[in-house]
Amino acid sequence: MVKILVIHGPNLNLLGKRETDIYGKTDLQTINGKISKRAESLKASVEFHQSNHEGDIVEMIGKAAKKFDAIVINPAAYTHTSVAIRDAVSAVDTPVIEVHLSNIYAREEFRQKSLISPVAKGTICGFGTDSYLLGIEAAVSMAGKK
Amino acid sequence: MVKILVIHGPNLNLLGKRETDIYGKTDLQTINGKISKRAESLKASVEFHQSNHEGDIVEMIGKAAKKFDAIVINPAAYTHTSVAIRDAVSAVDTPVIEVHLSNIYAREEFRQKSLISPVAKGTICGFGTDSYLLGIEAAVSMAGKK
Amino acid sequence: MVKILVIHGPNLNLLGKRETDIYGKTDLQTINGKISKRAESLKASVEFHQSNHEGDIVEMIGKAAKKFDAIVINPAAYTHTSVAIRDAVSAVDTPVIEVHLSNIYAREEFRQKSLISPVAKGTICGFGTDSYLLGIEAAVSMAGKK
Amino acid sequence: MVKILVIHGPNLNLLGKRETDIYGKTDLQTINGKISKRAESLKASVEFHQSNHEGDIVEMIGKAAKKFDAIVINPAAYTHTSVAIRDAVSAVDTPVIEVHLSNIYAREEFRQKSLISPVAKGTICGFGTDSYLLGIEAAVSMAGKK
Amino acid sequence: MVKILVIHGPNLNLLGKRETDIYGKTDLQTINGKISKRAESLKASVEFHQSNHEGDIVEMIGKAAKKFDAIVINPAAYTHTSVAIRDAVSAVDTPVIEVHLSNIYAREEFRQKSLISPVAKGTICGFGTDSYLLGIEAAVSMAGKK
Amino acid sequence: MVKILVIHGPNLNLLGKRETDIYGKTDLQTINGKISKRAESLKASVEFHQSNHEGDIVEMIGKAAKKFDAIVINPAAYTHTSVAIRDAVSAVDTPVIEVHLSNIYAREEFRQKSLISPVAKGTICGFGTDSYLLGIEAAVSMAGKK
Amino acid sequence: MVKILVIHGPNLNLLGKRETDIYGKTDLQTINGKISKRAESLKASVEFHQSNHEGDIVEMIGKAAKKFDAIVINPAAYTHTSVAIRDAVSAVDTPVIEVHLSNIYAREEFRQKSLISPVAKGTICGFGTDSYLLGIEAAVSMAGKK
Amino acid sequence: MVKILVIHGPNLNLLGKRETDIYGKTDLQTINGKISKRAESLKASVEFHQSNHEGDIVEMIGKAAKKFDAIVINPAAYTHTSVAIRDAVSAVDTPVIEVHLSNIYAREEFRQKSLISPVAKGTICGFGTDSYLLGIEAAVSMAGKK
Amino acid sequence: MVKILVIHGPNLNLLGKRETDIYGKTDLQTINGKISKRAESLKASVEFHQSNHEGDIVEMIGKAAKKFDAIVINPAAYTHTSVAIRDAVSAVDTPVIEVHLSNIYAREEFRQKSLISPVAKGTICGFGTDSYLLGIEAAVSMAGKK
Amino acid sequence: MVKILVIHGPNLNLLGKRETDIYGKTDLQTINGKISKRAESLKASVEFHQSNHEGDIVEMIGKAAKKFDAIVINPAAYTHTSVAIRDAVSAVDTPVIEVHLSNIYAREEFRQKSLISPVAKGTICGFGTDSYLLGIEAAVSMAGKK
Amino acid sequence: MVKILVIHGPNLNLLGKRETDIYGKTDLQTINGKISKRAESLKASVEFHQSNHEGDIVEMIGKAAKKFDAIVINPAAYTHTSVAIRDAVSAVDTPVIEVHLSNIYAREEFRQKSLISPVAKGTICGFGTDSYLLGIEAAVSMAGKK
Amino acid sequence: MVKILVIHGPNLNLLGKRETDIYGKTDLQTINGKISKRAESLKASVEFHQSNHEGDIVEMIGKAAKKFDAIVINPAAYTHTSVAIRDAVSAVDTPVIEVHLSNIYAREEFRQKSLISPVAKGTICGFGTDSYLLGIEAAVSMAGKK
Repeated sequence: MVKILVIHGPNLNLLGKRETDIYGKTDLQTINGKISKRAESLKASVEFHQSNHEGDIVEMIGKAAKKFDAIVINPAAYTHTSVAIRDAVSAVDTPVIEVHLSNIYAREEFRQKSLISPVAKGTICGFGTDSYLLGIEAAVSMAGKK
Repeated sequence: MVKILVIHGPNLNLLGKRETDIYGKTDLQTINGKISKRAESLKASVEFHQSNHEGDIVEMIGKAAKKFDAIVINPAAYTHTSVAIRDAVSAVDTPVIEVHLSNIYAREEFRQKSLISPVAKGTICGFGTDSYLLGIEAAVSMAGKK
Repeated sequence: MVKILVIHGPNLNLLGKRETDIYGKTDLQTINGKISKRAESLKASVEFHQSNHEGDIVEMIGKAAKKFDAIVINPAAYTHTSVAIRDAVSAVDTPVIEVHLSNIYAREEFRQKSLISPVAKGTICGFGTDSYLLGIEAAVSMAGKK
Repeated sequence: MVKILVIHGPNLNLLGKRETDIYGKTDLQTINGKISKRAESLKASVEFHQSNHEGDIVEMIGKAAKKFDAIVINPAAYTHTSVAIRDAVSAVDTPVIEVHLSNIYAREEFRQKSLISPVAKGTICGFGTDSYLLGIEAAVSMAGKK
Repeated sequence: MVKILVIHGPNLNLLGKRETDIYGKTDLQTINGKISKRAESLKASVEFHQSNHEGDIVEMIGKAAKKFDAIVINPAAYTHTSVAIRDAVSAVDTPVIEVHLSNIYAREEFRQKSLISPVAKGTICGFGTDSYLLGIEAAVSMAGKK
Repeated sequence: MVKILVIHGPNLNLLGKRETDIYGKTDLQTINGKISKRAESLKASVEFHQSNHEGDIVEMIGKAAKKFDAIVINPAAYTHTSVAIRDAVSAVDTPVIEVHLSNIYAREEFRQKSLISPVAKGTICGFGTDSYLLGIEAAVSMAGKK
Repeated sequence: MVKILVIHGPNLNLLGKRETDIYGKTDLQTINGKISKRAESLKASVEFHQSNHEGDIVEMIGKAAKKFDAIVINPAAYTHTSVAIRDAVSAVDTPVIEVHLSNIYAREEFRQKSLISPVAKGTICGFGTDSYLLGIEAAVSMAGKK
Repeated sequence: MVKILVIHGPNLNLLGKRETDIYGKTDLQTINGKISKRAESLKASVEFHQSNHEGDIVEMIGKAAKKFDAIVINPAAYTHTSVAIRDAVSAVDTPVIEVHLSNIYAREEFRQKSLISPVAKGTICGFGTDSYLLGIEAAVSMAGKK
Repeated sequence: MVKILVIHGPNLNLLGKRETDIYGKTDLQTINGKISKRAESLKASVEFHQSNHEGDIVEMIGKAAKKFDAIVINPAAYTHTSVAIRDAVSAVDTPVIEVHLSNIYAREEFRQKSLISPVAKGTICGFGTDSYLLGIEAAVSMAGKK
Repeated sequence: MVKILVIHGPNLNLLGKRETDIYGKTDLQTINGKISKRAESLKASVEFHQSNHEGDIVEMIGKAAKKFDAIVINPAAYTHTSVAIRDAVSAVDTPVIEVHLSNIYAREEFRQKSLISPVAKGTICGFGTDSYLLGIEAAVSMAGKK
Repeated sequence: MVKILVIHGPNLNLLGKRETDIYGKTDLQTINGKISKRAESLKASVEFHQSNHEGDIVEMIGKAAKKFDAIVINPAAYTHTSVAIRDAVSAVDTPVIEVHLSNIYAREEFRQKSLISPVAKGTICGFGTDSYLLGIEAAVSMAGKK
Repeated sequence: MVKILVIHGPNLNLLGKRETDIYGKTDLQTINGKISKRAESLKASVEFHQSNHEGDIVEMIGKAAKKFDAIVINPAAYTHTSVAIRDAVSAVDTPVIEVHLSNIYAREEFRQKSLISPVAKGTICGFGTDSYLLGIEAAVSMAGKK
C-alpha cells in the first residue's frame, strides 16, 4: 500500500472563504475528503497537514522521507519565495509532486516563477480540486517507479 | 462519450530514439497505445496528430473546436516560441490541457517559460508518459465541467 | 492602376468567431469585401491571401515584388516572433504597410513589440476594420511615391 | 459636421528646417494646409495648435472634450516621456488618434516606446505628411462610431 | 566518400537579389556550384535543400541522420527564433556545422544570439560564400572524427 | 499658526469628472473645502495651487520655503517623470509630504515608482480624499518638529 | 466603537535599541502607548501583536477578519519578501493599512519594493511614530466606509 | 566676435542657497559675472537665460540658431528626462556644449544618464563654476570650427 | 573567555544524509564536536542552535547581543531570502561571521547572492567543515577587536 | 606569398595540460606545427605569438598592419573583456579572423559574448585544432580579397 | 609652477592613422605639441606617457602622487573595463581629469559607461584635441584649489 | 612542509597609504610579516608577489602549479574584471583561496560580483589583515586534503 503525505501551504486553511473567484468555493475539508476517496480507489493511504509556517513545512518534508512513499505538496505562497522548502525537497529521495489549484502562469508575474518546480518530480496546476486528485494519481505511479 | 484530440508537437516523431536520457526510451506509437487504453478505461475516444509545422498545429486547434470536447497538447519546442499556437488556444472554447514529458522547469532558462500555459486550462509536466495519461484524465474531467 | 496584395496572418480565418471583444464580430470575408470596395474607389486592385504558415507568408512576400505595387499585411501572431517575415519585408522594394485590428500597445507586454514595424514603411493599428481601409489608402499613396 | 482638434507637439514648429532627412522638407504651415483640404473633403472642420509645453498640451486635451469630436495628436518628443499627456488622453472620452511623421520603430531604442499609444484609440506612423491625412480619416470615422 | 547535406534557410532563395550590401551579389545557384566543387576536391558528395518553412527544416534534419555523415546549415532568420530546429539538431548524432554569410555579431542586437550555436558542433560566420566552403571542410573533417 | 501650501499636479483640475472609478466622484473644490476644514481644526492655515506645468510646480516649491511651514503635494503624473520637481523638493528645508488619491502601487508598473518619495519627508497614498486630510495632519506634526 | 488590530513585524521588539538613526529612540511600548491614546481620542479600541514569525502574522490576519474592523500593520522586513502575508491580506475583507516608521523609498533598492502595498487599502511611511498615529486615523475612517 | 547663449536649467536660480555641499556656495549672478569676464577675455559676447520650464528651453534653442554662434547649456534636471530638449539640440546646427557643476557620474544612478550628451558637441562636468568657464572656451573654439 | 553563538540554518539537521556530493558526509553533531574542540583550543566557549524557522533565528540573534561576544551563522537557504535575519544582524553590535559549507558562488544563480553578507562582519565559504573552524577563529579575533 | 600572424591569447601556453575535457590534449607546439603545415600547403607563411598580456596583444596587432596580410587570433579570455584588443582590431585594415578551440556558445553565459566578433572579419569556433586550420584557409582567402 | 602628468591610454599611439572619421587626423605627437604650448601659456609644465598596458597606467598613477600636481588622463579602451585604474585614481589625492577625443556618449552602448568618471575630479569629452587643452586648463585650476 | 604562494593584486602596493578608512592603515610589508609568522606557526613556508599586471598574475598562477601546494590570492580590482585570471585558476589543480581585506559585498554593486569565486576553492572576506591569516590556515588545511 502506497503511503502519501499531502502538504497544504499557507492560507489554504481559508479555502472556500477567500477569493472564491480564483480558488473556488470548496473548503479544505471537502478537498481532503475527495483526495482520500481517490487515494482509496488507488489502494493508497494518505495523511494531511496544513501549515502557515515555512519552517514547519521544511520539517514535515525532512521527516517524511522515512514514513511516506510520495509527497503531494501545494506550497501556495511559499512556491515563489522559499529556498528552504526547495532545499528540503532536494534533500529527500521521496518523489515530490507539486500541485496548484489555480493556473499560476495566468496570474501576476511573480506567481509565474516557482522555486519548487525545478526540484519536484513534476508539476500539475490549473485544474482546481482536480489538481490534487491528479497529483495523487501521479504520486501512486511515481512511488511505484522509485 | 468524450472526444479528445491529442496533438504532438515538433520532433516528437523521434521519441525513443533521440536524447533518451531526457525523454525516455518509449516511442510515440507506444505512448499513443497507452493513451488509447487509458482513454478507453474512462469511456473517452481519442485521435492523434503529430506535426513539425507551427501552422499545421494552429489549424488543428482552429478546426478541433467543432469536433472535440477537449484537446491534450504537447507543444514541444513551440511551447517557448509560438504566439500563433497561443492565439489559436485562446480562440477556441474547448478546454486545452498542456502536457510535457520532461520537467521543463528543471532545464535551460528558455525552456522554463511557456507561452501556452497562461491560456491553457492547466499544465502537467515532468512525469514522462504519465504526463499524457494524467492529461487524458484532466481532459475527461474538464470536458465534463465545460 | 495600383495593384495591392493583402496578407492576413495566422488565426485571422477565425475572425468574427473568436474573442469578439478584442477583434470584433466582423468575419474575414466581410472585411475583404470592404477592402475591395475602398480599393475600387481609389482605382486600385487588390488580391487576398490568408495563411497560418510563417513559411507561406515569407514566400508570398518574396514573390509579390514582381506582381504588386504595395503590400498590406496583418502579420497577427507572427508580428512578435518572425524574423523570417521581417527579412522577407527587408528583401523587397515594394512598400509594405503593417496593420492591426486591435491596439497592440494596449495589450500584453509581448504584443507591444513588433519585429515587422522597423522594416515596414509604416504602421496603422487600433482602428478595427478601418485599420485595413487606412492601410489601403496608405498603400495607394506610397505606391505612387515609390 | 465633425470637429477635429489637431495638436502638434514640441519642435514641430521647426519642421522643414531641421533634420530634413528624417522629417522631410515640408513645413508645418504646408502640412496644415493639406490637412485642412483633406478634412474639408470629408465634411470635417479642423483647428490647429502647436506647443512646446507639456502643460499646454495637457490643458488643450482637457478642454477639447467639450468642443471637439476627435483629437489628432503628434506628441513628438513627449510621446516617450509624458505621463501627464497620457493621463489627459485617458481622462477624456473624445477619441484620440496618435500620429507620427517618421517610423518611430525604426529609430533609437527610446523612441520605440510610446507612453501615449496604450491609451490612444489607435496609432498611425511612418507615412510622412500622409500620417496626418490618414489620421484625419481615422478621426472622422471614429467620431462617427463614438 | 563523405555524404553532406547542405540546408539553406528562409529567404536564401532571394540571394543575390536582395540587400546585396549585406549578403553579396552571388545567387544561391552559384554558391551551390562552388560548394559542389569544393566538396568534390575533398572527395565528398553534397545534396542541397532550401526551405522557408521551419517545419520542413526540422524534418530534413530528423531524416538526415540515416543518410548523411554531416550537415552544413545556414538557418538564416530561424537562427534567432527556432527552438524546434535546435531540438532537431540535438536529436541527431550527425555533426551539424552552422554557417552564416554575414557577420551576425556585427548586426542588430537580436541577430547576435543564435539558438542553434550551443548545440551545433561549431560555427563559421562572416566570410560570405567562403563560410559555406569552410563549412564543407569542417564537415569532412568532423565526419571523419565521429 | 502653521502655514501649509497644498499643490495639486497635472489633470487634477478634472477630478470628479474623469476616470471616477479610480479617482472618485469628488471634485477638486470639494476636496479643498474638506482640507481647509481639517486644517482649521488643527489651527493651521492652508493655500491651494493647481498646475499642469512642471515648471510652475518647481517654482512654487522654490518660493514656498520662505512663506510656508510645510508643503503637501500630489504630484500626479509628474510623480513618475519629474527630476526637476524632485530637485526642488531637495532644495528646500520645508518638510514636503507626498500624497496620492489612488493606491499607486496597485496600478501600472510605471506608476509604482515615485521620483519624489525618496526626497519627501513621507508618503501617504490610497485613501482617496483622506490622503490629503492625513497629509495635513502629518504636515502640522512635521512642521512642529522641524 | 471601531476595533483595530495593530501588527508589528520582525525585529520591531528591538525598537529604540537598534539603529536609532533610522528608527528613532522610542521603544515599542512607548509607541503602543501613543497609539492607544490616539485610538481612544477617536473612540476606537486597539489590540497589539508583535511577531518575528511570518506564519504567525499570516494567522493573525486570517483570524482578524471576524474580530476587528481594521488592521494597521508594519510588516517590517516581511514587506519585501512575504507573498504569504500578501495573500493573507488579499484573503480578508477587513481594510488593511500598511505603515512604516522610516521612508522606505529613501533606503536600499530592495526596500523600495513592497509586496504588501498593492493589496493594502493604503500606505503611510516616513513619519516615525506618527506613521502609526496617521494609520489609526486612516483605519477609523476606512472602517467607517467599509 | 563670437556670440554665445548660456542656458541655465531648472532650480539653478536657487544656486548658492540649496544643497551647497553638492553645488557650492556661489550664486547664479556671481557665476554669470565670471562667465562674462571669461567671455570678454576671449573676445566673445554672452547672453544668459534661466528657466524652470522645459518648453521655454526648447524654444530658446530653436530661436538661438539665428542669433548665436554657440550655446552653452546646463540642462540640470532636464538632462535626464527631456527628449524635447534633445530634439531641439539635434534640430539646430549651432554647436551646443553641455556643462554640469557637479560630477553627475558620481551621483544617483538616474543622474548618470544624460539624454543630451549624445547630441551635444561635447560635455564638461564636475568642475563647479569652472565647468561653465571651460564651456565658454569650448564654445569659442567650436564656433570657430563650424 | 570569548563566548560564541553558532547558529545553523534550515535543513542543516539533515547534514551528512542529504546531497552528500555538495555538503559532505559529516553530520551536524560531528561538526559541532570539531567546532567545540577548535573553540576550546582558542580559549573560547561555544553554544549551538539549529532551526528551520526564520523567526527563531531572528530571535536568537536579537537575544544573543547580551550573552555572546560573537555569532557564527550559516544561514543556509535563508541566506538568499531573509531580510528579517539581515535586519536582526544589523540591529546587534555583536560581530556576526557568515559561513557556508559549499562554495555558494559556484552554484545556482540565486545562491550567488547573499542578503546577509553586506551586513555581516565578514564571510567564509567553500571549505566544508573548515568554514566553521575558520569562522570560530575569526569570531575570536573580531570579538577581541570590538 | 600571403603572410599571416597567428596570435594565441592568455593561458593557451598551458594547452594540452589544463582542462583537457574542454580544450583537448594537443599542446600549443603541436597545434602550431599543424598550422604551419596547412599554411605551407596554401603557399602562405605564418608567424606565432602567445601572450598573457592584453597590452602585448594590442601592440602586436598595431604593428602587424605593416608586416602581415592577415591575422588569425584566438583571444581566449580577452575575448570577453578586452575593449583595447577590439579597438586595435578596428584600427587596422588587415583582415582579422577570430578562432576558438571550444564552442564558446555552449559554455558559461559570459563566454557567449565576444567583444571581438563585431569588428573581426569573421569567426570560427568549436572545431578544436581545426578551428585554427580553417582560420588559416579563411585568412588566405580574405587576404586575397582585401 | 603646476606640474601635470598627461596619460594616453591604449591604441592612442595609432592616432591620426586609424579610424580618422572618429578620432581625427592629428597624430599623438602633434597633440602633445599643442598641449605643451597651452600648458606653457598657463605657466604649467607637462610630462607625457602613452601605454597599452593597464598595469603600467595603474603604476604611473600610483607614482604620480608625489611628483605631479594634477593628472590628465585619456584612458581610451580602459575607460570601460578597468577597475584597477579606477582604484588607482581613488587611491591618490592628486586631482585627476578624464578626457576623451570623441563624444563617447554618441557611440556604442558599452562606450557610454565610464568606470573612471565617478572617481575623477571631472570629465571633458567630444571636443577632439581641444578636450586635452581644456583638460590642461582644468588641471591648472584644480591644482590651485587642492 | 606546505609551500604557499601569496599573490597580491593591483594597487595593494599602496596599502596603508590610500583610502585607509576602507583598507586600514597597515602596509603590505607589515601584512606579509604577519602572514609569514602565521605560516611558520603552521609549519608552512610562504612566498609573496605583488603585481599590477593581469598578465603577470596569470603567469604566476600557471607556473605555481609545480612549485606550490596552495595559492592565497587577493585579486583586488581584477576580481571583478579578469576572465584571464579565472581561467588560470581553473587550469591548475593547486587549491586557490581567494581573500579580500574589505567586505566586498558591502561596497559598490560592481564589487559584489567576483569572477574568481566560482573557480576558487573558497573565499574569505571582510576581516582586514585577518582575511590573509585565515587564508593561510585554509591553504594549509586544503593542501593537506588535495
